[in-house]
Amino acid sequence: MADTISFSRGAPSADIVDIEGLKQAAIEAFEQDPAGVAGYGTSIGYVPLRRWIAEKHGVPEDHVLVTNGSMQADAFLFDELVAAGDAVVTERPTYDRTLLGLKERGADVHLIGLQEDGIDVDELRAALEGGLRPKLAHVIPNFQNPGGSTLSLEKRRALLALAAEHSFVIFEDDPYVDVRFTGESLPRMLELQPGGQAATDGPVVYACSFSKTVCPGVRVGYLVGPPALIAKIARRATNTYIAPSQVAQAIVHRFVSGDRFPTALQTVKDALAERSSTLADALRTHLPEATFVQPEGGYFLWVSLPEGEGHDCARIADEAAARGVQIVKGTDFLLEGGESAFRLAYSAVTADKVDEGVRRLAEAVAAAKA
Amino acid sequence: MADTISFSRGAPSADIVDIEGLKQAAIEAFEQDPAGVAGYGTSIGYVPLRRWIAEKHGVPEDHVLVTNGSMQADAFLFDELVAAGDAVVTERPTYDRTLLGLKERGADVHLIGLQEDGIDVDELRAALEGGLRPKLAHVIPNFQNPGGSTLSLEKRRALLALAAEHSFVIFEDDPYVDVRFTGESLPRMLELQPGGQAATDGPVVYACSFSKTVCPGVRVGYLVGPPALIAKIARRATNTYIAPSQVAQAIVHRFVSGDRFPTALQTVKDALAERSSTLADALRTHLPEATFVQPEGGYFLWVSLPEGEGHDCARIADEAAARGVQIVKGTDFLLEGGESAFRLAYSAVTADKVDEGVRRLAEAVAAAKA
Repeated sequence: MADTISFSRGAPSADIVDIEGLKQAAIEAFEQDPAGVAGYGTSIGYVPLRRWIAEKHGVPEDHVLVTNGSMQADAFLFDELVAAGDAVVTERPTYDRTLLGLKERGADVHLIGLQEDGIDVDELRAALEGGLRPKLAHVIPNFQNPGGSTLSLEKRRALLALAAEHSFVIFEDDPYVDVRFTGESLPRMLELQPGGQAATDGPVVYACSFSKTVCPGVRVGYLVGPPALIAKIARRATNTYIAPSQVAQAIVHRFVSGDRFPTALQTVKDALAERSSTLADALRTHLPEATFVQPEGGYFLWVSLPEGEGHDCARIADEAAARGVQIVKGTDFLLEGGESAFRLAYSAVTADKVDEGVRRLAEAVAAAKA
Repeated sequence: MADTISFSRGAPSADIVDIEGLKQAAIEAFEQDPAGVAGYGTSIGYVPLRRWIAEKHGVPEDHVLVTNGSMQADAFLFDELVAAGDAVVTERPTYDRTLLGLKERGADVHLIGLQEDGIDVDELRAALEGGLRPKLAHVIPNFQNPGGSTLSLEKRRALLALAAEHSFVIFEDDPYVDVRFTGESLPRMLELQPGGQAATDGPVVYACSFSKTVCPGVRVGYLVGPPALIAKIARRATNTYIAPSQVAQAIVHRFVSGDRFPTALQTVKDALAERSSTLADALRTHLPEATFVQPEGGYFLWVSLPEGEGHDCARIADEAAARGVQIVKGTDFLLEGGESAFRLAYSAVTADKVDEGVRRLAEAVAAAKA
């Protein structure tokens, strides 16, 4: 069999990570702050990185908690806010690990449809008017995983109005925001909320990550939110691991503060733009019956095949695997449905491999149907 | 007030960390395994470090899980094994964060007395014969925190016999084992259990850390245990943070595999030996009524003042703080009692400061009693 081409994992290929820059950042971290790097630190994270993040978002430092990856931040937030039986809203489809984390905590998960401009606010409003009382709504506003869509400004405002009216937390889960490769950036709901990003009692808790802008192996993510909630989560973090990796966070701090970072980030965005458009072209050529939202950033294309034609993503994934192509089946991102859909991650597939991967995938779709 | 002298935190001072060696290890990690360092990895930990640990302990790799510090490993283990209402045995006194973690999970914690040669096995046996049915017994076998004592070989064997008879897990929590500075090393209970360290269904789960041998800021620890249990905890870790910091673990791997590590570790042990004996001498001089176990390794001295003389560790801690000396009061390490005791960590106090610190502490003891 030919080389495996993996559209399955949302991760960058190693060729677009600035390894030399990270090595220089590590040298600087050990040379310039030996005691800070070597010591335990505290659960709020490496202090200079926390300060950098606070400045980036225009908030006081006590609004920020830096964690071992943003999924760890999600887990702490869910542990703090979501008890068994609590209603929680997510998008439909959404990140499989978010669904799993909520189900494990016994949450009553309500999936609200995702449209080309983000979550279906009308459907959410109707559910709320019908009596749904969620503790929080989890929303991935930019280049959604797996859908690829971006929440419009109008809908960001509408969501905030609904949160105010029905007293739920908006968990703005935004790991892809800084890898936008086309189109205009939209303001965060964190910024649009009453009082702005530094509001001390706003409805928005914001999560972001350095996995997409620096590299996943550092495992550094963070939360921005109301100081009282951040303090509670910091206590939870202390009781879990004392402090996150000071070494990893110091390296991230030196890297993102340094001269090389803008160029390194542009390299990532250029590669993602090329991979994304090559993938869209290949789908139009080899799988013309597929529909998808062409994303303006991020890692993912959500591919839908026509309903009612007997497509089965599990069979397609198996047939694709037999041809050396890995995909993730649509059903993984939903509680029900998704059989005629799958997610393609283009983040790790170099542009010269994309066409061949989609050619094999089209064969797999045909074979799965036969 | 003179400079603060802190006997409170169990952490090394920066002067005994081999920063230059860590910097070199970071350079090697980024140069020699860029894809491994930059990528997500998986929840089992950085593969070459996991292999190094497996070889150190003489177990197959699937017995090992590498985590973001060993306290994170403890948390996963408790989440896996301890439900609300479950009986759990710990030493009396024991590490305050262990007590807190167990109480937070609603465990029914039974503290069994600590003697100069470790946990009081007779007291434990009597409790078991009286009907106690613990899910696990948490034991810190070497240079216990806070007690400073080491579990004798005879008691290690007796504990294993009790675990076999009463079907409980022994959680051998051993972060200090590699900073022994005098006396003979004793075999781990992991090794003494039926089938030895590589037993697939033994009663022992073993935890260790690189915080004491490399530095705390890396936040790297690990578990060794039955593969079926390790696999369950690995799934839990995947669902919490995908993977631990590959960057931090790769740096640890290069450092402990490298030429400088034996010398760096000897530097740590020599400093701890000097600080420990200087502290014991100072206590004998300035606070002759105090009793303590002189440890053969680790970070801590547990100081007991005579009972029935009205000592109150909270007042002593306050009076000490007023004199620029920080200690941790004995009551923090117990569910009840401990008022006439406190813990002194010598790990971060350079030998030239020890005598002055104890002189002020003796004043504080006198002032608190007056």
